[in-house]
Amino acid sequence: MLIVHEREIAALMTRDAAFSAVEKVFAAMADAKAYNFPVVREAIGHEDALYGFKGGFDRAGLTLGLKAGGYWPHNLEKRGEINHQSTVFLFDPDTGKAKAMVGGNLLTALRTAAASSVSIRHLARDDAKVLGMIGAGHQATFQLRAALEQRAFEKVIGWNLHPEMLPNLEKVAQEAGVPFEAVELPGMTEADVIITITSAFSPSLMAEHVSPGTHIACMGTDTKGKQEVEAALLSRATVFTDEVAQSVSIGEAQHAVAEGALKAEDIAQLGAVINGSHPGRQSAEEITLFDGTGVGLQDLAVAAAVVDLAVEKGVATEVDF
Amino acid sequence: MLIVHEREIAALMTRDAAFSAVEKVFAAMADAKAYNFPVVREAIGHEDALYGFKGGFDRAGLTLGLKAGGYWPHNLEKRGEINHQSTVFLFDPDTGKAKAMVGGNLLTALRTAAASSVSIRHLARDDAKVLGMIGAGHQATFQLRAALEQRAFEKVIGWNLHPEMLPNLEKVAQEAGVPFEAVELPGMTEADVIITITSAFSPSLMAEHVSPGTHIACMGTDTKGKQEVEAALLSRATVFTDEVAQSVSIGEAQHAVAEGALKAEDIAQLGAVINGSHPGRQSAEEITLFDGTGVGLQDLAVAAAVVDLAVEKGVATEVDF
Repeated sequence: MLIVHEREIAALMTRDAAFSAVEKVFAAMADAKAYNFPVVREAIGHEDALYGFKGGFDRAGLTLGLKAGGYWPHNLEKRGEINHQSTVFLFDPDTGKAKAMVGGNLLTALRTAAASSVSIRHLARDDAKVLGMIGAGHQATFQLRAALEQRAFEKVIGWNLHPEMLPNLEKVAQEAGVPFEAVELPGMTEADVIITITSAFSPSLMAEHVSPGTHIACMGTDTKGKQEVEAALLSRATVFTDEVAQSVSIGEAQHAVAEGALKAEDIAQLGAVINGSHPGRQSAEEITLFDGTGVGLQDLAVAAAVVDLAVEKGVATEVDF
Repeated sequence: MLIVHEREIAALMTRDAAFSAVEKVFAAMADAKAYNFPVVREAIGHEDALYGFKGGFDRAGLTLGLKAGGYWPHNLEKRGEINHQSTVFLFDPDTGKAKAMVGGNLLTALRTAAASSVSIRHLARDDAKVLGMIGAGHQATFQLRAALEQRAFEKVIGWNLHPEMLPNLEKVAQEAGVPFEAVELPGMTEADVIITITSAFSPSLMAEHVSPGTHIACMGTDTKGKQEVEAALLSRATVFTDEVAQSVSIGEAQHAVAEGALKAEDIAQLGAVINGSHPGRQSAEEITLFDGTGVGLQDLAVAAAVVDLAVEKGVATEVDF
């Protein structure tokens, strides 16, 4: 059995490799060659932790397993450890034996960033120039860094409920040589691509803040009750997602569906655009919206990629198991 | 992180330790100090395999994690590997970090045997003399070996659909110095304790095959549609289980409940007898029936016990993770 320690991931995993792994598994999902298992997510009543399992099987990539872990909100203050803790376990689909164990913390950030990037690659206008960010926390920096590689962006604009965090975005934009500007929400009409990455329970981005032709990637909503954008935006937009079942239940689409403004049948899989069975964006005025809910197969895909890289570079630990 | 290889388990784990671990966690479940998560079980469409996760959290023992794995029906013929493959992963409930990985194959057999043993200890008549076995496969030998330690049995009687397998039981009985006799099903009226451990989809043990005062442990039914005993037996008996939700949905009680002959409220947790909140057997004529469905907490309990033993004896492998 192979073990890849959390500390090895940063040197092994490139944004390109994460992008390819996520793009490929989204396509496999749309081809019905890969599917996610029901998600287990439990408030365990200890340390206020949320713990659970996201598993799946990709018959195309022969990747089987799960990510286990969750959110321990007191880790940082009590122990100086990060609050999100996860581990990916890969199994041999031919035998059922455990095959690899991989630190899942950085991988989770990378696969989430890769998902909005894949949506930008396949759905944003080619001539997109202004990238808008809603949210400026730790994960927002990953989304921004990956998104900047997808188009020749000339400016990043950003809004956050707590504006004192906006320098997080500015720093990443500057590193990429792109100017940054803090804006109020109505200023988002300037953006050609908008990424929302908050943990809000009420919408900040309203329909009136979005211009025709924009691509929006909603990446923060992964739980019943969370919401980043006005539901009316989803009826105005062509809506795509990683997994329809999650999108309508715990994703951004949950609210528009509950209000009757959107039906599950109206939501397309991003993978269908990747594999060519859905045309994707069809005009320069169309608003496209990707509801990124986060699926186990993304975790397995990046973990499998990192195991291959670790073996190649000789940093995987082999244990007798 | 600690690793305990499958091959170490046999030398580490005693039937006594498995018994104690299972007894303790059943009591914690009845005290609402431990609970099982929803079970994930998937036919993955590859190698005809069933794969999934059984997780839980025991706040009393501070044991958190899951068993992952399943059933690969072609392992033996194709690769000389056993068909049931599982691994237990334990997590630190204070931080969410992976803590131990333990081979789960032998442990699964031992924890299943421990469950029927715990039911015999707490529900069979003290003067039980004849132990009846329905089923004579590999797992049946584990159930028999563990059961023989619970009472001063003077005879083992056995029935199996394929009688050529009965020598499996005879061998274990002889090792324990107890005579063995093959019987037809009506011969089971002689038994004071009966264990059913088959994978049948229709009942073999009928109500007329069971005498007053008998304790029955039904250990084979863990899936919708499986059935080992006549549903009428459950309305005649006082019914106990590991977990009521599983008992009525995938356990032996599913049929009696579907027929309206038994209600979920009539089924008691075995743990309630262990912790004294249920009186258990109340007369020498009462038929008691334990519906052992198999829960994740049993797996975690025996795995946690084996990790402690492995550390004590210096056979746990410590890996940097």
